[in-house]
Amino acid sequence: MRKDFGAKPWLYPLPVLIVGSYDAQGRPDAMNAAWGGIYESDQVILCLSEGHKTTKNIKARGAFTVSIADRAHLVQADYVGMVSANAAPDKMERSGLHSEKSAHVDAPLFDEFPMALECRLVKVGEDGHIIGEIVNVSADERILGEDGQIDADKLEPISFDAVHRTYRVLGETVGNAFSDGAALGKNG
Amino acid sequence: MRKDFGAKPWLYPLPVLIVGSYDAQGRPDAMNAAWGGIYESDQVILCLSEGHKTTKNIKARGAFTVSIADRAHLVQADYVGMVSANAAPDKMERSGLHSEKSAHVDAPLFDEFPMALECRLVKVGEDGHIIGEIVNVSADERILGEDGQIDADKLEPISFDAVHRTYRVLGETVGNAFSDGAALGKNG
Repeated sequence: MRKDFGAKPWLYPLPVLIVGSYDAQGRPDAMNAAWGGIYESDQVILCLSEGHKTTKNIKARGAFTVSIADRAHLVQADYVGMVSANAAPDKMERSGLHSEKSAHVDAPLFDEFPMALECRLVKVGEDGHIIGEIVNVSADERILGEDGQIDADKLEPISFDAVHRTYRVLGETVGNAFSDGAALGKNG
Repeated sequence: MRKDFGAKPWLYPLPVLIVGSYDAQGRPDAMNAAWGGIYESDQVILCLSEGHKTTKNIKARGAFTVSIADRAHLVQADYVGMVSANAAPDKMERSGLHSEKSAHVDAPLFDEFPMALECRLVKVGEDGHIIGEIVNVSADERILGEDGQIDADKLEPISFDAVHRTYRVLGETVGNAFSDGAALGKNG
């Protein structure tokens, strides 16, 4: 028996994307977004509304970063989603986040968030969303496994639970993609 | 110290969306997609390529469902992502998935997946992606908590790890959104 909840923006899992940008004065800003994801094999989409300072920044500077919020910096990630730099000019100082400019695009990388996509603005989409080319993915060595790859057990990315307005951490590996399904058959 | 990985479609967490549709003969199909998410407060975007049977189906019928792949049906979820109904006409029989038509849109709901978004096609976007209105979110009573809401601990949604091509289950609650960040300050 199914229960209907009506039209809700609910999906599992939703990411917690920390979007980094510079304003016209070169000051870094960060915001928290759950609506966005991979758009093409080398592009991301951010479904931000027009009013955000981040949206203006990205349009002006033509670049942004997308950091993956991690368990260790959940408070900082939540803070930059609660507070607007328009209303609180000292937002970034209070956030405790530190940044340096990406070597690849004109946008800040935050020291605290160990994985980020460095992106060049491709266009503002037909409905006002930000579409960017992923120029580079970078990760701090502290979250790499012995194979030199990003290790989600070390990253501990968090997810936004839109039903309960909580954050959940990503859990353990439970299967292999493009593999476990073969038990049921293969193409042709 | 950061390591650069180049342009990769990597994000944590990526969803495992099971897109349900009917073909011209009314036969259900399902496919697995990690590229997509919430587009507006009542809309989703699916970044599917043109070649998929699902893409043709959605354009023809004007509707689709998005089920959340769960740990209990990981094999079925992986299978419908590995196998195309174009190549394997008996795909749905082999998948073991059972469906009935949504009461809200002209698309199938799968009995096995306990949560789904029921969507009406709004348009094919400027880059060929599917944009749909979320008409209803429904969930099987077996995944509801005592508060009558969807309980992610019961749903056990899975996530696609694009780095390692594995599936991970969503883990435990570690914080409160729009709340924990207040420790660092508030607007104004």
